[in-house]
Amino acid sequence: MITWSSLSSDEKKQALARPAMANSQQLKQTVSDIIAKVETSGDEAVLDYTRTFDCPDLQSLILSQENIDALAAQVTPEVAAAIDTAFNNIKQFHEAQSPTDIALTTTPGVDCELRFTALDAVGLYIPGGSAPLPSTVLMLGVPALVAGCENKLLCTPPNKAQLIAPEIAYAARKCGIDKIFLCGGAQAIAAMALGTQTIPQVDKIFGPGNSFVTEAKQQVSQRADGAAIDMPAGPSEVLVLADALADAEFVAADLLSQAEHGPDSQAILVSDDATLIANAKAAVERQLATLSRAEIARPAMENARYILAGSIEEAIEVSNAYAPEHLIVQIEDARRYLSKIKYAGSIFLGPWSPESAGDYASGTNHVLPTYGYAKNYSSLGLLDFMRRFTIQELSADGMRNLGPAIMALANAEGLDAHEQAVALRMKKLGFGGNA
Amino acid sequence: MITWSSLSSDEKKQALARPAMANSQQLKQTVSDIIAKVETSGDEAVLDYTRTFDCPDLQSLILSQENIDALAAQVTPEVAAAIDTAFNNIKQFHEAQSPTDIALTTTPGVDCELRFTALDAVGLYIPGGSAPLPSTVLMLGVPALVAGCENKLLCTPPNKAQLIAPEIAYAARKCGIDKIFLCGGAQAIAAMALGTQTIPQVDKIFGPGNSFVTEAKQQVSQRADGAAIDMPAGPSEVLVLADALADAEFVAADLLSQAEHGPDSQAILVSDDATLIANAKAAVERQLATLSRAEIARPAMENARYILAGSIEEAIEVSNAYAPEHLIVQIEDARRYLSKIKYAGSIFLGPWSPESAGDYASGTNHVLPTYGYAKNYSSLGLLDFMRRFTIQELSADGMRNLGPAIMALANAEGLDAHEQAVALRMKKLGFGGNA
Repeated sequence: MITWSSLSSDEKKQALARPAMANSQQLKQTVSDIIAKVETSGDEAVLDYTRTFDCPDLQSLILSQENIDALAAQVTPEVAAAIDTAFNNIKQFHEAQSPTDIALTTTPGVDCELRFTALDAVGLYIPGGSAPLPSTVLMLGVPALVAGCENKLLCTPPNKAQLIAPEIAYAARKCGIDKIFLCGGAQAIAAMALGTQTIPQVDKIFGPGNSFVTEAKQQVSQRADGAAIDMPAGPSEVLVLADALADAEFVAADLLSQAEHGPDSQAILVSDDATLIANAKAAVERQLATLSRAEIARPAMENARYILAGSIEEAIEVSNAYAPEHLIVQIEDARRYLSKIKYAGSIFLGPWSPESAGDYASGTNHVLPTYGYAKNYSSLGLLDFMRRFTIQELSADGMRNLGPAIMALANAEGLDAHEQAVALRMKKLGFGGNA
Repeated sequence: MITWSSLSSDEKKQALARPAMANSQQLKQTVSDIIAKVETSGDEAVLDYTRTFDCPDLQSLILSQENIDALAAQVTPEVAAAIDTAFNNIKQFHEAQSPTDIALTTTPGVDCELRFTALDAVGLYIPGGSAPLPSTVLMLGVPALVAGCENKLLCTPPNKAQLIAPEIAYAARKCGIDKIFLCGGAQAIAAMALGTQTIPQVDKIFGPGNSFVTEAKQQVSQRADGAAIDMPAGPSEVLVLADALADAEFVAADLLSQAEHGPDSQAILVSDDATLIANAKAAVERQLATLSRAEIARPAMENARYILAGSIEEAIEVSNAYAPEHLIVQIEDARRYLSKIKYAGSIFLGPWSPESAGDYASGTNHVLPTYGYAKNYSSLGLLDFMRRFTIQELSADGMRNLGPAIMALANAEGLDAHEQAVALRMKKLGFGGNA
């Protein structure tokens, strides 16, 4: 347990430091090689990599519609109902984000518009690994569906049987994703960014992944012929603010929810009450013993930090300095502290709002800025699946009204062709001067 | 003049190809060295570079308030009035973009919110060079002002007299920018991204620049301790769609407005009328002779392309394939073609809407996605100066209603700590099971 007020400024920084991310030259080179190979050899390269890493017998990169349907039918009624519930909540919350086009006359005769439109083609990446992630399919697929993206494709690594988890197929079908490609890793990102014979090129790539996937997303986003990406990635993290009245078992369970994501997950408890911290630590130990993923959660909890603040206000200052991805506020009458909270990807208020709620089913998106990016990036939302462009139309009157200001500014900037484009028009409208 | 229908698919791509951008290993290394030096030596490094490149006698990186005021007072009344007019229009258009927070009950007892908030600290970069760019100050400064960003700082290279152009000081003051720092290039970007003794670290960097600035923005945006950036950069470009009724002098003037930005600027005319194209080419030659920046515009116009389409519809297909930054539509009743236009950063409709209008004063933003990025990036707008975060609050009822779905999903994903965080709460609410 760290007493915040006893720390120097440097020690405070150290107490909130995040683990360094893997971005070695070797990782960069490996990923760059994979992208180059996919660019040169297309499907053949993607198939090769997928056979090597995921499925030795893979015949085709496409998961057939028959297989999607058959897999979706295997989902248990209980899980199907849970996916349906989550889908409905996420859909409602993202539909509420639908933006309104703007049309405005800024000066008489000068009409300006801002329009929102869906991205044409989006690529959703769903990692493989030990457990299927239907929730991530929903978090990426629902906003793509609500935005109206015409082409929604999904890449995920196949299992040895050339198939994917039934839950992923079911969730993808709910989101109207009709193209599922059987590939993962940097090769999947490269394929979506550059296109292959089978996998269409997309405008933007979304979704989590390991360090290869993350590095590949960064690299393709730096290429003019590549794709945009959702946001920079980092290990997942939670900060729990708790007061003396918080339930230590709940607090411990919330810290462990974060810890089980991976050994590099960050879990931080900040409280103004030393007893709560001690009780939460003890509860963590008790609960850890019962978890199937204890071997993942334990190393993460070894890096967990327990910080004692002098007051709730100081505890919030600690949180603001950290800018957590997830911020859980288990403080009596939590909502009244909202205005003091500066940075967080998503905020969970009160004892009945565990991170699990937002991870799965409340309706908010679980793709959130981590690693301190909550200061300058947004939670994933509908707008990330759209783009904005502007329109302007000046009438002859508009030109008459605005022409002199435009000419004065163009002249001040020494751009006479800009000035001339207006002068010629003003002349045609009967205003003097030599164009 | 290129006849579109006579081209093969490869030739079509070639006809719309953009010039390769400078991103040599040497450029990358130089910029990386500059960033490293600023990181290590702070102000001293920034001062050194600025003395070397811009102002040998520079004493301080800060432009004093007295100097800002004195400079602003030197602006001629005509230019001041023009800046005021542009400021008012840009402000109106960006105020209209103010987003609305969302609060929604997705399931009884499950309240979800999406809130928008201004970025705390933004850094605006204004290039130096032959002419001052007050218009760019407005395009970056007005949305920062409207968003309510608390800290708005501006970096621009000083002249030999340790000062800046009066117009920039005047425009910056209108936008409520009180901190102006006298530095440019990669060193200015590094200073804003990492902070120095004098220059505060910002959350996001906006603005155009040369290849060093562009590369520096890319590099700092890849660092977890760096800053976000507005959008990827590329040479500026215009595509003009014109029919037989278009005024060839207007068309030529609009192509030349683009060309005078730089020798790598792209200007493309697409028309269904060969005579219009011939007349526009002749007008370009005539007008070029009168321009002070002819030596910049001429090489750009040598790379200009004049494309003859079989119909207006085909001309729009050419434009969609190119996805221009600026799209000028000088076609009779231009607005009726809007629904066919897929990609453009900003669209200028009809004969009285030259690019100059949007560059300066109509109200739309002149920072636009170029180099084909109009397909997946947005025109700069108010939302780029804000971030979104979510909040959720479940009541005990909300937990009762949603708990089973969350537990089913957590179980399907094999994440038992997630499941347990809910199970413990359900148990406390009197629902059975072993937590």
